[in-house]
Amino acid sequence: MSTAQTETPKEFKVIGTRPIRHDGVDKVTGRAVYGADVQLPGLLYGAVLRSPHAHARIKSIDTSRAAVLDGVKAVITGDDIVPAESVEVLDLGEGAANLKNLRDNAMAHEKALYRGHTVAAVAAVNMHIAQEAIDLIDVDYEVLAPVVDVREAMKEGAPLLHEDMTTESLGEDTGKPSNVAKHFQFKLGDSEKAFADAETVIEREFYTATVHQGYIEPHNATAKWNEDGHLTVWTSTQGAFSARKQVSGILDHPVSHIRVVPQEIGGGFGGKIPVYLEPLAAVLSRKSGHPVKMWMTRSDVFEGTGPTPGSYLRVKMGCNSSGRLVAAEGYLAYEAGAYPGSAVGAAAMCLFACYDIPNATIDGYDVVVNKPRSFAYRAPGSTQAAFAVEAIIDEMARRLGEDQAEFRLKNASKEGTRQVFGPTFPRIGCVETLQAIKRHPHYQAPLAGPNQGRGIAIGFWFNAGMKSAATASVSDDGSVNLVEGSPDIGGSRTSIAMQFAETLGIPVEDVNPMVGDTSEIGYTDVTGGSRTTLATGMAAHLAALDVRDQLVERAAALWEIEPSLVSYEQSVFSRSDDATKTMTFKELAGKLAETGGPVMGKGSVDADSGIGGSFAANIVDVEVDPETGKVRVTRFTVFQDAGRAIHPSYVEGQMQGGSVQGIGWALNEEYFYNASGLMENASFLDYRMPTSFDLPDIDTVIIEVPNPGHPFGVRGVGEANIAPPPAAIANAIFDAIGIRLRKLPMRPDRVVDALQERPSSTAQAAGL
Amino acid sequence: MSTAQTETPKEFKVIGTRPIRHDGVDKVTGRAVYGADVQLPGLLYGAVLRSPHAHARIKSIDTSRAAVLDGVKAVITGDDIVPAESVEVLDLGEGAANLKNLRDNAMAHEKALYRGHTVAAVAAVNMHIAQEAIDLIDVDYEVLAPVVDVREAMKEGAPLLHEDMTTESLGEDTGKPSNVAKHFQFKLGDSEKAFADAETVIEREFYTATVHQGYIEPHNATAKWNEDGHLTVWTSTQGAFSARKQVSGILDHPVSHIRVVPQEIGGGFGGKIPVYLEPLAAVLSRKSGHPVKMWMTRSDVFEGTGPTPGSYLRVKMGCNSSGRLVAAEGYLAYEAGAYPGSAVGAAAMCLFACYDIPNATIDGYDVVVNKPRSFAYRAPGSTQAAFAVEAIIDEMARRLGEDQAEFRLKNASKEGTRQVFGPTFPRIGCVETLQAIKRHPHYQAPLAGPNQGRGIAIGFWFNAGMKSAATASVSDDGSVNLVEGSPDIGGSRTSIAMQFAETLGIPVEDVNPMVGDTSEIGYTDVTGGSRTTLATGMAAHLAALDVRDQLVERAAALWEIEPSLVSYEQSVFSRSDDATKTMTFKELAGKLAETGGPVMGKGSVDADSGIGGSFAANIVDVEVDPETGKVRVTRFTVFQDAGRAIHPSYVEGQMQGGSVQGIGWALNEEYFYNASGLMENASFLDYRMPTSFDLPDIDTVIIEVPNPGHPFGVRGVGEANIAPPPAAIANAIFDAIGIRLRKLPMRPDRVVDALQERPSSTAQAAGL
Repeated sequence: MSTAQTETPKEFKVIGTRPIRHDGVDKVTGRAVYGADVQLPGLLYGAVLRSPHAHARIKSIDTSRAAVLDGVKAVITGDDIVPAESVEVLDLGEGAANLKNLRDNAMAHEKALYRGHTVAAVAAVNMHIAQEAIDLIDVDYEVLAPVVDVREAMKEGAPLLHEDMTTESLGEDTGKPSNVAKHFQFKLGDSEKAFADAETVIEREFYTATVHQGYIEPHNATAKWNEDGHLTVWTSTQGAFSARKQVSGILDHPVSHIRVVPQEIGGGFGGKIPVYLEPLAAVLSRKSGHPVKMWMTRSDVFEGTGPTPGSYLRVKMGCNSSGRLVAAEGYLAYEAGAYPGSAVGAAAMCLFACYDIPNATIDGYDVVVNKPRSFAYRAPGSTQAAFAVEAIIDEMARRLGEDQAEFRLKNASKEGTRQVFGPTFPRIGCVETLQAIKRHPHYQAPLAGPNQGRGIAIGFWFNAGMKSAATASVSDDGSVNLVEGSPDIGGSRTSIAMQFAETLGIPVEDVNPMVGDTSEIGYTDVTGGSRTTLATGMAAHLAALDVRDQLVERAAALWEIEPSLVSYEQSVFSRSDDATKTMTFKELAGKLAETGGPVMGKGSVDADSGIGGSFAANIVDVEVDPETGKVRVTRFTVFQDAGRAIHPSYVEGQMQGGSVQGIGWALNEEYFYNASGLMENASFLDYRMPTSFDLPDIDTVIIEVPNPGHPFGVRGVGEANIAPPPAAIANAIFDAIGIRLRKLPMRPDRVVDALQERPSSTAQAAGL
Repeated sequence: MSTAQTETPKEFKVIGTRPIRHDGVDKVTGRAVYGADVQLPGLLYGAVLRSPHAHARIKSIDTSRAAVLDGVKAVITGDDIVPAESVEVLDLGEGAANLKNLRDNAMAHEKALYRGHTVAAVAAVNMHIAQEAIDLIDVDYEVLAPVVDVREAMKEGAPLLHEDMTTESLGEDTGKPSNVAKHFQFKLGDSEKAFADAETVIEREFYTATVHQGYIEPHNATAKWNEDGHLTVWTSTQGAFSARKQVSGILDHPVSHIRVVPQEIGGGFGGKIPVYLEPLAAVLSRKSGHPVKMWMTRSDVFEGTGPTPGSYLRVKMGCNSSGRLVAAEGYLAYEAGAYPGSAVGAAAMCLFACYDIPNATIDGYDVVVNKPRSFAYRAPGSTQAAFAVEAIIDEMARRLGEDQAEFRLKNASKEGTRQVFGPTFPRIGCVETLQAIKRHPHYQAPLAGPNQGRGIAIGFWFNAGMKSAATASVSDDGSVNLVEGSPDIGGSRTSIAMQFAETLGIPVEDVNPMVGDTSEIGYTDVTGGSRTTLATGMAAHLAALDVRDQLVERAAALWEIEPSLVSYEQSVFSRSDDATKTMTFKELAGKLAETGGPVMGKGSVDADSGIGGSFAANIVDVEVDPETGKVRVTRFTVFQDAGRAIHPSYVEGQMQGGSVQGIGWALNEEYFYNASGLMENASFLDYRMPTSFDLPDIDTVIIEVPNPGHPFGVRGVGEANIAPPPAAIANAIFDAIGIRLRKLPMRPDRVVDALQERPSSTAQAAGL
């Protein structure tokens, strides 16, 4: 692993080092407290009845047998979560939903729209009785025909999920009932005219599967509804404040009466932003008068929570005679799942983001199907987009006889490039990332044998800014307790503490970071959008500056001089009027009690103006077994612009994690549906997420093009790295065996099928 | 209940009202989480082996049989808590202790100094096994003669608790081994000369018993010691930061590695400031690798934790011919228990505080005895002092033929009165409190029958200031989450939230107060010293001002004007340049997301400069049964200067609670010791704390002489109210049956004995 620094860094003491994470020992010794560990006096256990049908009308629910079972304390159905009339849209962090859909998804009203849709729930004195009670609930369903494919769902005459839903097309309500919730268009220049003038044009179709985030820890929630209406929820969430907002909206209960206590989290990747069990546990608690704890099985997680959208993309790109991209068009249809709100908007914004193309048109379609409501999954929508665009770029470069990296570099986005949806890029690292590829030994290394190939690809994610808060309290031994509002998924306690420590020039080991709940800390948006180290880091930086300013005043008071005569550098206070007088941070901390009492600092930010987008790219080598169709990744290098790598190990961890998930999308993972619209592989055994046995070492190269919007240059590195792998692997497969696969996952049977259908080598060479 | 306001109050919206406490529903419905409710994965249970002897040398401890018992995970003895060489003194909040004594008290080294002294502890998979293991620990004791009475302990040749301890007398080490740890003197004017000139002089001796705070909830602690040395302690404590400091000192472990999470607390009264189980649970956790939970039985609480000191007092007071007090002397010997540090210092400071006496000398003696280390109990030391002084005052008034209230008023302390130990009083309410007595119907009401009598008395407590911190976060619905560091014993969440709400002009129901742990909030001293509503209220007030200032800036930004043009009054922002433009707090709160992100406020104070002392007084009627000696309190009115009653119900609650405890001291409660120095009534059944069947209604009269050191005039009302009851009851008993009882408790056998020894009525009238 290496770091390619492209701009001379400032001298840092803490940033760029690799301290042990503050929560590390807790986690590796099994002491960290997760949602499933929550215990309360009088606790009940809740279970959920889920629809066994992909699409069904609920004619009636009879809970009478369940209610009288000994040990059952409450039974709830759709009647207990009042359907919303309002279609007010709540911003959930990454993703949004209107109140009506949010409530219907929390608990089915009238119709069950996917297998796994919650129909009823029970609280009982133990989980065995709760499960037994679930089996005693009688639901009379009218089973309807399902539709689980985006293109089928768009067809005239397809089964309609929401009979009263009409398409919003280019901002207008068409009044026409349809599964297409929305059609929008981005337009830059005149792509039609530009294509007419283009020298080389390629247009292809692509399909991607529904894929789950696959976090290790299933969802869980414990709720305690007091008789005064004060509700406390302990849950595994990416954002306590977002969970509070959703629970408030779903239950029509004021946020002032809700406290959400985020527990340690076993992975999220976007999928732990929406709430599922939280409102159910809350209502069961309200009805039973006891706290109620609930958790999901793995099947519940697959069938009842939000995966990434399956998609259909048709992309067309054109070059002029100099090999400059001049025109592009995209048609993107994304599966929203049962309720509108797929990532197709973000996908369209990312589609051509890596390239400077003056004329482009993108049409996006958000389409409901009988699958769980899709939700954010790491760079939502961008992986699907990169899979399409980077395959065409690869094909174009080959057709033009250009070097893959060079061709991309020639057309790369840079500061000032106008994006299809309007804004121009600020300082970005797209060029530097591609240059790092070109320079890397892997790029020129010889391949070792037959059926081996190499591909590259690049991808993009905007990253988010949003709101964060932090407070800091100085202890008399010079340590500092830092409270921030971002649940720690990937080491953010430490990356945030490091920025705090750097600002004050103190060791990061002297900072004790902790994640506050919604009552303990100021509003903080979700841990997602690669925003945590960026935005909560900014809040911590401000809190440190606040501490510094107060300590300067204390030092001045002790020295009986004006604060303006005190300076602070690297944890030492000194006097400009007497160079012999200094005082360390620790020394002054020990004197706070006698100089006015405790010192607390605070910082809060809206970081939207400081966002820095990130580019990630891969070089991938594969070997294809032409007999079985199995593709083995033999070498993998990931490059990403981190802006500034606060804790390089965690940056590398994000790069490796995103790569691994991208490899899973590329080769293995999908929701496999039967003709009745039922998922047939809702277990980790059958879902086939890659394990360490399936994966190569992932080499990492960090590029640092500092983000001018952040005090330390941070961009955020959690997401862009998942975008390029499927494309890079598809390109490598073509390099290995001359086959273009344009459907994910590129599983063995598809490779074998494609090999059997392979045209003559001449036609192949001409066509691709 | 009535409120006698002596100064015109400001117009308040929230202060002075009686809202339902924020934690009320939680507590009355049994949902509040106390220390005993703490649950953690892998939790072990700890039990303690306590010395069965009052005084014994520990020759050896054999833990081998306990260690091999199935289910036992760790056994610790004095070897596991290293004895300290250092005698560095830690300020614990109310009370202080040196490190050596703190460690020896946590776990006996070499000697057990009282029955109940911790000798060893065990952690096991359940409490039954832990208890069984305790019985398998073999300790070889050399039993020593005990001394459990302060005057016996001071005698030459008394058994010495600490063979190497010598008396510090008037600042000098006498070099003489003794149970007298310290002798100090306060001196004002020349009492010897003044007595020579005095017209009327009375000198009496008084004795008080060891009395326990008697909080409902026994001590408990759960500790988790991580392998990286980070320790978390969940405990019932009056001060998380004090507990952190003590655990740090006892275990020689840095505070930066300790987090103390205060749980709900079932009473403290000073007794939940010191730590007992916390360091044991921590070491058991370190040794076992598991979290460990411990709790005390009621006998453990009586025998192993810090009650108030038993005491001997000799007080002499003299008047001139005008009935003005001109001279006073006090000799105070207080039982520290097994280690030095009784409340005799505070007692000496309170002794003559109610009176303006120009010449006074006080000698104080801190004496160790074979009882548990004494600790703070509500106005520590002052009740004993008032019992002595107010009896003499009563006798003096009778001898001079003066009205009891009038005589006290004539001699009352007021602003400018010099105290014996030096400082002069700021604005105080001593006079106003006595005037309220004089005005009250109870004072002149006729008594109903024979053997009935009436007494009055007044008492004082300084109140404390110390350090507090608060942070506040504004939610978008206009509610505010307020985090403060004071464990809530008597409704302080609400009294603090009310001051926050008053400052911002918002409803207190819109404020969600919570108690932060040592990682969540800035340093905050103990809930004790009547300081919480005063000091943490000031911190909350500052946090509210901080919020207000930030919101003014946001309003200015929204209106695009200078902040100086925005004013804020009663939750409405308005423009001075355009009176038609206003915005409510709630409206602006909903716009924070779009105007720069979350708004947090903070406040921290050292309130020592803002302390306001409080005076409390009683009128008490009693009826004495001359056959049985039983004294029944038939009417009781308590008067107290609250400065400003933030939540009058809680002020009244404190006044009633202190009165009830004072009645318990007066008539019932004592540690009853046998000849071997063993307490024979270590249960609630035998200890005879008064219950509602033993008590009259307690009428309350709040006096409000605002404290100029506090923004709302708060003084603090938690303590002074326990001082006068024993004296007032003794005076009432004299009024009823002509007998002066000068030994607490004034139990039936003492009344009967005194009646039998009564001198002729003539002698009685002359003598007293």
